[in-house]
Amino acid sequence: MTPLIQEIRHNPLLWLLAFVPAKFAAPLAHTLLFALSIVAIVPLAALLSRATESVATKTGDAIGGLLNATLGNLTELIIALAALRAGQYALVKASIAGVIVCNALFMLGASLLLGGLKHHVQDYNRGNARLQAGMLFLATVAILIPSVLAEGDAPASAATMQTLSVGLSVLLIVTYGLGLLFSLKTHREFFGGADHGEHGEAEWPMGLALGTLAGVTVMVALVSEVFVESVQQAATTLGLSPAFVGFVIVALVGGAAEMVSAFSAARKNRLDLSVAIALGSAVQIALFVCPVLVLLSFVLGPTPMSLQFWPGAVAMMIIATMTASLVTNTGRSAWFVGALIVNVYLIFCITLYVLPPAVR
Amino acid sequence: MTPLIQEIRHNPLLWLLAFVPAKFAAPLAHTLLFALSIVAIVPLAALLSRATESVATKTGDAIGGLLNATLGNLTELIIALAALRAGQYALVKASIAGVIVCNALFMLGASLLLGGLKHHVQDYNRGNARLQAGMLFLATVAILIPSVLAEGDAPASAATMQTLSVGLSVLLIVTYGLGLLFSLKTHREFFGGADHGEHGEAEWPMGLALGTLAGVTVMVALVSEVFVESVQQAATTLGLSPAFVGFVIVALVGGAAEMVSAFSAARKNRLDLSVAIALGSAVQIALFVCPVLVLLSFVLGPTPMSLQFWPGAVAMMIIATMTASLVTNTGRSAWFVGALIVNVYLIFCITLYVLPPAVR
Amino acid sequence: MTPLIQEIRHNPLLWLLAFVPAKFAAPLAHTLLFALSIVAIVPLAALLSRATESVATKTGDAIGGLLNATLGNLTELIIALAALRAGQYALVKASIAGVIVCNALFMLGASLLLGGLKHHVQDYNRGNARLQAGMLFLATVAILIPSVLAEGDAPASAATMQTLSVGLSVLLIVTYGLGLLFSLKTHREFFGGADHGEHGEAEWPMGLALGTLAGVTVMVALVSEVFVESVQQAATTLGLSPAFVGFVIVALVGGAAEMVSAFSAARKNRLDLSVAIALGSAVQIALFVCPVLVLLSFVLGPTPMSLQFWPGAVAMMIIATMTASLVTNTGRSAWFVGALIVNVYLIFCITLYVLPPAVR
Repeated sequence: MTPLIQEIRHNPLLWLLAFVPAKFAAPLAHTLLFALSIVAIVPLAALLSRATESVATKTGDAIGGLLNATLGNLTELIIALAALRAGQYALVKASIAGVIVCNALFMLGASLLLGGLKHHVQDYNRGNARLQAGMLFLATVAILIPSVLAEGDAPASAATMQTLSVGLSVLLIVTYGLGLLFSLKTHREFFGGADHGEHGEAEWPMGLALGTLAGVTVMVALVSEVFVESVQQAATTLGLSPAFVGFVIVALVGGAAEMVSAFSAARKNRLDLSVAIALGSAVQIALFVCPVLVLLSFVLGPTPMSLQFWPGAVAMMIIATMTASLVTNTGRSAWFVGALIVNVYLIFCITLYVLPPAVR
Repeated sequence: MTPLIQEIRHNPLLWLLAFVPAKFAAPLAHTLLFALSIVAIVPLAALLSRATESVATKTGDAIGGLLNATLGNLTELIIALAALRAGQYALVKASIAGVIVCNALFMLGASLLLGGLKHHVQDYNRGNARLQAGMLFLATVAILIPSVLAEGDAPASAATMQTLSVGLSVLLIVTYGLGLLFSLKTHREFFGGADHGEHGEAEWPMGLALGTLAGVTVMVALVSEVFVESVQQAATTLGLSPAFVGFVIVALVGGAAEMVSAFSAARKNRLDLSVAIALGSAVQIALFVCPVLVLLSFVLGPTPMSLQFWPGAVAMMIIATMTASLVTNTGRSAWFVGALIVNVYLIFCITLYVLPPAVR
Repeated sequence: MTPLIQEIRHNPLLWLLAFVPAKFAAPLAHTLLFALSIVAIVPLAALLSRATESVATKTGDAIGGLLNATLGNLTELIIALAALRAGQYALVKASIAGVIVCNALFMLGASLLLGGLKHHVQDYNRGNARLQAGMLFLATVAILIPSVLAEGDAPASAATMQTLSVGLSVLLIVTYGLGLLFSLKTHREFFGGADHGEHGEAEWPMGLALGTLAGVTVMVALVSEVFVESVQQAATTLGLSPAFVGFVIVALVGGAAEMVSAFSAARKNRLDLSVAIALGSAVQIALFVCPVLVLLSFVLGPTPMSLQFWPGAVAMMIIATMTASLVTNTGRSAWFVGALIVNVYLIFCITLYVLPPAVR
């Protein structure tokens, strides 16, 4: 247990763990519950990320990278599942779109910015970035096309839209599987893993890492349940629109752990890892988590959930995809590139804050 | 006549020729006529492609390539002319948009996929691909902008839209001509032709090739006439929407010959030829066939046909153009790139099948 | 004074200066006033450009380039300020969008075309082109997103849209400042200035240059005032729509001086300078002039002006940005690339001429 305690002692982010028990204490007001659940999720996510990295060192880069992305997205998946069971589809979709945009813009942009402030020019493997951007593009098309083709005619019946959503979801999941096959197996020499030798941090023993993973996952599930319950009332109290909460707050909270990893890698001039975390995570949400939620809604939700998003979310996803495509074209970065991408994200945040749209 | 018979003996696709006479035999139901005309067009298109290639070997790459693209698109042109004369403008436009999207996505994607399954990594001349993608982009803008600028105001009068369509059509045809001048004359050293030495197939004598060209073109015209007549009723019988038929079936049938050539070239690691056929054909439809049809509609059609397409078709053309631009940026391909592009096309097909839009 | 007179003698464009006094002469009809103010602005703009270049030689490339862009855009700024004070916001916005599109498409395209007709292939620094295209992309997003998110709901209140416009305007101005910091200070070695040694023209003494600058700026202000007053009535008389005048005529007149510089640089195979002028000027309008006008409208205008544009203008700006991004990706050009870009611009002009939209 010593490495876990040492880790907690040295990582100020983990001191927030103290807030975790507090949230089960008393009949608190929704706003306080909301604030506490945010504060509690962050250190849990950081622990999750740290434990995953330790496992990854043992299993090798290929499987480790996948594990890292998957467990990093676990918070989002659990939050989404809780909202799915509650039938809060608007929150689920705002959160999915928000995470995709947040990862592809803010996490990528802030990594390039923070890395660029320390290193004059940084190079990275553009092959991987292009692969991720291409898959993100496919997901955006799958989400965009049904809306465009349905528009202008008599609105498509809910049943038709369900059939379509199932078909496209299966296509996205298959493509995600093919993408893993491509990058982990048939052409893995083009997606060279980052050199873990530079890490220099003491690795945890396998047993501790796996135990931490299991324990933290359960705690994240509990905290997330409270988060979803309290978030809507808290938003009303704080004067925040549900769109802003779902799109910005949930995305930033859910992605906290990955951001810590991505930013820290960028500062260590390991931009390949930052790009892989930021875009890889966005791709996993778009091509795996989102379609899986659509399919699961038939079993878990009160009614089936479609793959249709509100036009504003689609527009932001298209812009995020275009930005990621244009930026990662060169495989070379400096601080201003990061600042530009972060500013695109800020435009979204400012607009959602000032002009709250009625998310459908 | 021997090489022609030999070709038919060795090419199983051409055995379908047996179906050609069958379709003139008896008062068949529309669905059967529809099926037979599809079955009959495929081997005719293959013969056309083969004869063209023989001529191309004699005339050299530059003029031969143009001839290849032009005659490959002959089927589409004849089908479109038959529909134009019948005033079926919705079918004409769905077919034009369908061919552009099918060539730029399915033909290109399947070539990269089939080539990539045989060869680990394939390189091609990205200069040519970029030229074609740029011209496709121009055509998309010409089709998009009138709709966007007209939208929201009082709808533009039909007469105004006609004047505009004529102006833009002339602009597109001029650009296509300039593109030929650029790639065949002033800068042809950048568009190096494929090496025909690898072919190894016996070339036909010039007389046989030209005779076959003439004869097959007449037969294609006859079969196409029946195809257009039967396609709408057949669609109703089979439960297919007119949009699906016009956009998917007609495009796949009309492009059969070029696909055979493009796929075979990709398997022989001649990706330059595949890309030139797929994108070159899409460009010729967009910048030459389509505007020529608009101009001809003044003479042949019951009323003038405009350059306006339904928004869904425009959206699919934009996505196809973007995909082609992003993909051909590197000049390097592996199987997953092809799979991604084919999947974009599949998204269109699934959506059109499940959610039939009312094509206007 | 001799160099100024010599310049006027050798530059036929400057002979138009004779028209400047004519326009204050008599109570002319609006159409004549309009024509004369156009004719008068052109040589003033050319003088302004020439004087600026002389100053630039003294101050060095970095500050000189900025000065060149800024003073080149002075005409547009003064025209826009006059229209702003008159509350003609539709004209202001049409002119801003028109200048951005005109510079990013026509000025860039015609430079590549004219340069390409003289030189077989031309190379340029794509780093700078990509930076400018990226900043243009950010501005387009800032203008697009409020419309997209507001659309479909109850229209946002004017007050909300004002708050949003101010926020986004500040963001754009800050980004523009960061862009200058990046290209002029922290990473200036990547944006190597053009070699002025090739110029070969006699430089003006500093005093003459600064005096000309001051004098011409005052004259431009006077002529512009008349231009804006007469342009609307003249348009009605000539049968031109206000959209065509604002978008095409004003943009071409206002950018005349920069075009002269950009085209001449392209002919001298200094494509870096052409690209910097064309895209740099578009970026300055989008990220500096436009947001400053929004902020100034609180002080100068009858009511605050928002950052919202009519959808057609937004569409044209997006296409212009995409075109600039795609084209400048390679850093290599030939005449056909220029022809393609100019044709995209021609599509806009033809459509605006034939199908005049009601600019809001």
